[in-house]
Amino acid sequence: MSRAAPESRTAFAHFLPVTTRWMDNDVFAHVNNVVYYSYFDTAVTHFLIESGVLDIEKSQVVGLVVNTHCNYFSSIAFPDRISVGLRLAKLGSSSVRYDIAIFRNDEDLASAQGQFVHVYVDRDSNRPVPVPEALVLALGKLAPPAAR
Amino acid sequence: MSRAAPESRTAFAHFLPVTTRWMDNDVFAHVNNVVYYSYFDTAVTHFLIESGVLDIEKSQVVGLVVNTHCNYFSSIAFPDRISVGLRLAKLGSSSVRYDIAIFRNDEDLASAQGQFVHVYVDRDSNRPVPVPEALVLALGKLAPPAAR
Amino acid sequence: MSRAAPESRTAFAHFLPVTTRWMDNDVFAHVNNVVYYSYFDTAVTHFLIESGVLDIEKSQVVGLVVNTHCNYFSSIAFPDRISVGLRLAKLGSSSVRYDIAIFRNDEDLASAQGQFVHVYVDRDSNRPVPVPEALVLALGKLAPPAAR
Amino acid sequence: MSRAAPESRTAFAHFLPVTTRWMDNDVFAHVNNVVYYSYFDTAVTHFLIESGVLDIEKSQVVGLVVNTHCNYFSSIAFPDRISVGLRLAKLGSSSVRYDIAIFRNDEDLASAQGQFVHVYVDRDSNRPVPVPEALVLALGKLAPPAAR
Repeated sequence: MSRAAPESRTAFAHFLPVTTRWMDNDVFAHVNNVVYYSYFDTAVTHFLIESGVLDIEKSQVVGLVVNTHCNYFSSIAFPDRISVGLRLAKLGSSSVRYDIAIFRNDEDLASAQGQFVHVYVDRDSNRPVPVPEALVLALGKLAPPAAR
Repeated sequence: MSRAAPESRTAFAHFLPVTTRWMDNDVFAHVNNVVYYSYFDTAVTHFLIESGVLDIEKSQVVGLVVNTHCNYFSSIAFPDRISVGLRLAKLGSSSVRYDIAIFRNDEDLASAQGQFVHVYVDRDSNRPVPVPEALVLALGKLAPPAAR
Repeated sequence: MSRAAPESRTAFAHFLPVTTRWMDNDVFAHVNNVVYYSYFDTAVTHFLIESGVLDIEKSQVVGLVVNTHCNYFSSIAFPDRISVGLRLAKLGSSSVRYDIAIFRNDEDLASAQGQFVHVYVDRDSNRPVPVPEALVLALGKLAPPAAR
Repeated sequence: MSRAAPESRTAFAHFLPVTTRWMDNDVFAHVNNVVYYSYFDTAVTHFLIESGVLDIEKSQVVGLVVNTHCNYFSSIAFPDRISVGLRLAKLGSSSVRYDIAIFRNDEDLASAQGQFVHVYVDRDSNRPVPVPEALVLALGKLAPPAAR
């Protein structure tokens, strides 16, 4: 939990543009700390849906969020545009850990950075199962650029 | 409060793209009814900021929301893209009423449509004041296309 | 859509306490206009669940929100406590219209007041169906006090 | 970032009841991971306001959130009641780290647990300043029960 330094866009493999909303700003006129996790959550789920891995209605195996964290480096405020960077941090037998960064407007250094961990479970039994093969394949697109 | 029919994009003067978020979807796997108002709120405030009318920190005159309503015609779900259409419904002495519509992906008919009313007040006294001249000018851009 | 006057607590049949949240407040240091609809939505759904009418997983018939509106009379801010008042406005063949009011702390006059309309549909066909009998019975608890 | 085990209520010094909302539930019919941070944020800010330490409008010194994290142990769903437990994790020269836990209904073990770190800065210069004395005093109320 040390306070890591912000990384640049080149360290991430995949990006999702997200529009900020007026109510994202709190009393201090900046995006509230909670809302960053909504950007995280949206980027991961968007990746899963566009990769054909998650079918909300039908998937028998689903990812449960077991851990998230975020370091906040500099503030963002509506109407800033943001881009959410994604890369694979660690693929376990039943779990996937993502590195996620929030980039403000055209800035190259992350305004915030953190991680998001899914454990895959059977929807009925709630027991851990292997990460679905289709996801393992899709995660190839999230390999850290340096590792390619 | 009759249930008006959805209008098409050509009936609106100005558009703001908004990205949906995973948590916008509720248990029924569609964007929750509350969230539409966040799209409304964002489109109006974005228009005010980009028109140079609202300075969050400094404006002595601010718009208070006194009335909103929305008719829901068809559902939207993350990861749909949406576009928020805006036009002036009525300019009063101290108030501005906006017509707002939510368009899903490339659809031409609104998925939802409603109104949003601001009353302008002095930030300290909270008393109604005339709609700021800069806003009256900016509202020219929101005239209903048919009226131009 | 005229700007009705706020009513008092005695005009409502049922109340749900709701706690405000820090991020409910927007840049103007008051609860954002969007969030009121979350209080509405929560009060109606809470009533349906505690009445045994809505089973999120199993109900074959569900209520779709087709129309909502809200008049804002006076502001609320975290950490205010609120109480959401509910009463039946109109029971139709396939629809239920609720009157809803938001009361701040121990105040007797509503800070905001509006309506929320559900149309009941079959979950698969999405076609209107009669309001479920169990709900018709439960709605007896929401009769306007004056009507009892 | 190891996955700590959930602690019981007796390990926390202060509690805030929070009501869940219908839209807190996401497609999987449980409170979305993002929303837990809103409970965290609300509990800390509520403590600061009721302790007389934070005056939203006037405080010249404010806490910036620099780091948050959460471990999710078991799910919560609207209409569950929750209670947010708070204790001081670490008081630094310019920073305060809180341990926070979310308890569901009358359960004794936390459903989720994490931390929230404020760095105190001057509102104009944005530079770190010593934790305000009034807060240092108030934090006495958050001492871990075992330490008293």
